[in-house]
Amino acid sequence: MRTSQFPLNTLKESPADAEIVSHKLMLRAGLIRKLAAGMYNWLPLGLRVLRKVERIVREEMDRTGAMEVLMPVVQPAELWQESGRWEFYGPELARLRDRHAREFCLGPTHEEIITDLVRNEVQSYKELPLCYYQIQTKFRDEVRPRFGVMRAREFVMKDAYSFHNDYESLQQTYDAMHEAYSRIFTRLGLEFRPVRADTGAIGGSSSHEFHVLADSGEDAIAFSSASDYAANVELAEAVALPAPEAGAPQPMSLVDTPTQRSIEEVSAHLNVPPSRCLKTLVVKAEDGGVIALLLRGDHELNPIKAEKLHGVAAPLTFASDEEIQGAGSVAGFMGPVGLNIPMLVDRSAANLVNFVSGANQAGKHYINTNWGRDAELPAVVDLRTVQAGDPSPDGQGNLTIARGIEVGHIFQLGTKYSEAMQAQVLDENGQNRTMIMGCYGIGVTRVVAAAIEQNHDDKGVIWPGPIAPFDVCLVPVNMHASETLQAAAEQLYADLKAAGVDVLFDDRKARAGVMFADMELIGIPHRLVISERGLAGGTVEYRGRRDAESQNIPLSDAVAFLRGKLAAE
Amino acid sequence: MRTSQFPLNTLKESPADAEIVSHKLMLRAGLIRKLAAGMYNWLPLGLRVLRKVERIVREEMDRTGAMEVLMPVVQPAELWQESGRWEFYGPELARLRDRHAREFCLGPTHEEIITDLVRNEVQSYKELPLCYYQIQTKFRDEVRPRFGVMRAREFVMKDAYSFHNDYESLQQTYDAMHEAYSRIFTRLGLEFRPVRADTGAIGGSSSHEFHVLADSGEDAIAFSSASDYAANVELAEAVALPAPEAGAPQPMSLVDTPTQRSIEEVSAHLNVPPSRCLKTLVVKAEDGGVIALLLRGDHELNPIKAEKLHGVAAPLTFASDEEIQGAGSVAGFMGPVGLNIPMLVDRSAANLVNFVSGANQAGKHYINTNWGRDAELPAVVDLRTVQAGDPSPDGQGNLTIARGIEVGHIFQLGTKYSEAMQAQVLDENGQNRTMIMGCYGIGVTRVVAAAIEQNHDDKGVIWPGPIAPFDVCLVPVNMHASETLQAAAEQLYADLKAAGVDVLFDDRKARAGVMFADMELIGIPHRLVISERGLAGGTVEYRGRRDAESQNIPLSDAVAFLRGKLAAE
Repeated sequence: MRTSQFPLNTLKESPADAEIVSHKLMLRAGLIRKLAAGMYNWLPLGLRVLRKVERIVREEMDRTGAMEVLMPVVQPAELWQESGRWEFYGPELARLRDRHAREFCLGPTHEEIITDLVRNEVQSYKELPLCYYQIQTKFRDEVRPRFGVMRAREFVMKDAYSFHNDYESLQQTYDAMHEAYSRIFTRLGLEFRPVRADTGAIGGSSSHEFHVLADSGEDAIAFSSASDYAANVELAEAVALPAPEAGAPQPMSLVDTPTQRSIEEVSAHLNVPPSRCLKTLVVKAEDGGVIALLLRGDHELNPIKAEKLHGVAAPLTFASDEEIQGAGSVAGFMGPVGLNIPMLVDRSAANLVNFVSGANQAGKHYINTNWGRDAELPAVVDLRTVQAGDPSPDGQGNLTIARGIEVGHIFQLGTKYSEAMQAQVLDENGQNRTMIMGCYGIGVTRVVAAAIEQNHDDKGVIWPGPIAPFDVCLVPVNMHASETLQAAAEQLYADLKAAGVDVLFDDRKARAGVMFADMELIGIPHRLVISERGLAGGTVEYRGRRDAESQNIPLSDAVAFLRGKLAAE
Repeated sequence: MRTSQFPLNTLKESPADAEIVSHKLMLRAGLIRKLAAGMYNWLPLGLRVLRKVERIVREEMDRTGAMEVLMPVVQPAELWQESGRWEFYGPELARLRDRHAREFCLGPTHEEIITDLVRNEVQSYKELPLCYYQIQTKFRDEVRPRFGVMRAREFVMKDAYSFHNDYESLQQTYDAMHEAYSRIFTRLGLEFRPVRADTGAIGGSSSHEFHVLADSGEDAIAFSSASDYAANVELAEAVALPAPEAGAPQPMSLVDTPTQRSIEEVSAHLNVPPSRCLKTLVVKAEDGGVIALLLRGDHELNPIKAEKLHGVAAPLTFASDEEIQGAGSVAGFMGPVGLNIPMLVDRSAANLVNFVSGANQAGKHYINTNWGRDAELPAVVDLRTVQAGDPSPDGQGNLTIARGIEVGHIFQLGTKYSEAMQAQVLDENGQNRTMIMGCYGIGVTRVVAAAIEQNHDDKGVIWPGPIAPFDVCLVPVNMHASETLQAAAEQLYADLKAAGVDVLFDDRKARAGVMFADMELIGIPHRLVISERGLAGGTVEYRGRRDAESQNIPLSDAVAFLRGKLAAE
């Protein structure tokens, strides 16, 4: 392709309303243009990237045996009423009426449609399992669309849905999707982690998010330095840490802490590190009373873990000062010694020796508290949020915490939709059996933005080879002033094309600096520069987009050299 | 692909609400399923066809130099208000409000969006011409969606838009699109005709429709037996026919036609063929008066032609009996002799000799009327609708009239949108110049239905090779009862795949008759049957979908034989 026939829409300045780097660069590099809040036109350069992403996704979905379908963007309200989501879904669901005043919505996902399709097409358990997918436009009327295509209202998603006789079959397809997603993001050239995600009401280990690692990611994820363990920080299991060294148990004694209530204040006042102070939090209990949650002073309570625990009321609600008083303690001076309410202690806090704890009276703490002797050890549970450096819960290596952008999500739906919509098959005995479902999404347009968040520098985008809009750019210096140079550049362009190289030939009448800047901004991975001076020595100049230096290579070897570079990607 | 892993969704019965053959067969063959009125799910088999159509369209659009973009389905009302279409477009435009009560619509086409994009991106005349296209979902809230995807509410369209400095440049792109469309429909394997279409207010020869010929087509088109002339019947030029033989001019005489008013009645009563009777129609004139339109009795007035003529009021309105009386005549007995109002005569009627005409008095006609002598010949114009057998207006061959399905439309828009939306470039002199536009559409989903309307029999679809969901089906007879046969079938399947043949292997445990019927219904162009009996003689049975008979071919030649068939397509 020639820039004279494939105009670039690059911008010198970042539009003022772009907040994150991928949004800025997608506008500056001419990949997208805003049509309205959260709605974007994909320009030719951006669409080339999007199509390459789609193609890799499609190939890997096909490889799993999933079958591609295409379901409408516009969906009838009746099916959403059947599933119960019509009432449940808030203003994020864009609704409209047709000319006969019938209600429809723009699909944010397609569970209702596929469940309706499958319940009509499939009669027997023998026809299962089945997995359908599509790559289709979705619409979600986000309360605050932002970050370009990262959080858009209209976007392209790959969504897949599987149907099963039993959970074993669901698990098999789920595992196959997990593998396919790993292959997809590997082939896309992205650094990513599959992480266990919160499954909310459904529970179990039945959901994974796939995150592209990037500093600007909205989610914090914890992953092992030595294994493939990875989980959302909110969900990662926190193992028991050994107690900080505190010598042999000493006698407990009451000390004055007249105004010291926080861990920091008590720790400083008593000269005991926070890791040896006990943090006592009183929250509402399921039975209407209160319950104490005990952690090490240097650890943070994980509310998602806490509210799933037996006895703790959900959503997690802290007790008031009056409730604490009613429980026989004083806010700021709480501790397990002599406290007569239910308690739960975190694994690491359970290991403490000679620790500081509140004395349940104003202005007093105990030092050298010890479990068993001074207070009965409560039930030991996982209460805290993991920290960087914690041992990985699988016993291999330590946890690193990084930020990630969620680009995929696989989910064991169970019977949520099939039960509500009576999607059944006849089983071996001629009885109705509700199908079991899984769903599997990839934010296709979001992947493009995430790739840029992970791969850019101050000059622009640095595309991973597999999704670059062009593999190579050919930049001639002052070509329009020299017929010899022009002929050589045209020949090299023709040779590269003939060798199957996807090359962008910058044949504009522009200064070399302008062309270089554009090619760096749009992130073409490989650059060849052809000039009169180089030509005199029979060379062209090569530079990879991440290289610090250029190198001269013989013009006659240029095609073979490039093919070698591309094959190595 | 194996049917065990790619389940067919064939139906024995046609759903009751399907009216035309393509709709019936698309449901029966399991290509689509209805979601709601005018909204369809594309099943895996149908999507394979749709993707093949899209691919051919995309390749040919790319070949013209048009650049692919992707514009949102949801469009902001503001741009439609700018173009004036927000008010003009009726309930066919599906409208919705977002959570902030801002108005949007679902795009039935994308003129506003592309015009907005281009006016923002393009500054100079030097950047023109430009042509963008997309393949995208559209929505039109049809008053009566029907015929499956033929007239659906949600559908897939290829829409292209070009931008120019002048009409010469527009004409060049228009011609290139005309060629590209011809290549597309040829490559799709369809019999089609590009036909001149009515351009409404814009006028000129600036619109062509592309029709797939099929008996069920909604439009009548006229095309030459000897050239590539083709036009919508409403628009086709009618040439002057020689007068029917009537001998030398005879003296005109007044005859009694007491109750005979229609051509049929007068012709029968006077024993003069309708082709020698003059039909006089009085319509409203532009100046508020009336004007007479004169045709041969065997010809039909073409209202679209008539209302474009100078002097005739649009829309065409027939004069009342009172107005005819006021003009000095009597309804049913009108004629040019002695009539003192403006008149226009059709080319063929102008050639008549010794013809019958109304005498402008009740119960009287003239016989042997002759132009010049009895009445002055009025201005001669093209007033009539062409008929089968008419000479083609390009002078080559005669016209055939056939029915067609409109699958493509190319259109010289001019400045309709660019003027309303102030889409301008700076010209050579630094002055603003309004861009000139063209638009070019193909109904991608409709093409699939049209292909079936043109290619089917009582057993099912007969796909043109280029868009068949699979090239070949391999049907084993009673395979599951014979390990030898199973091994041979598996080997042949593997060999075909290895040779790059897109083959569907029917490995179901089904009776041969069921498999044959399914493969004929879904329209696979080539069938191989492998059986124990054939295998004993070292042969397999081949049959093309249109063949009357099967033929045995050596098993060892099967792959080469099939490749030969496919290469010849």
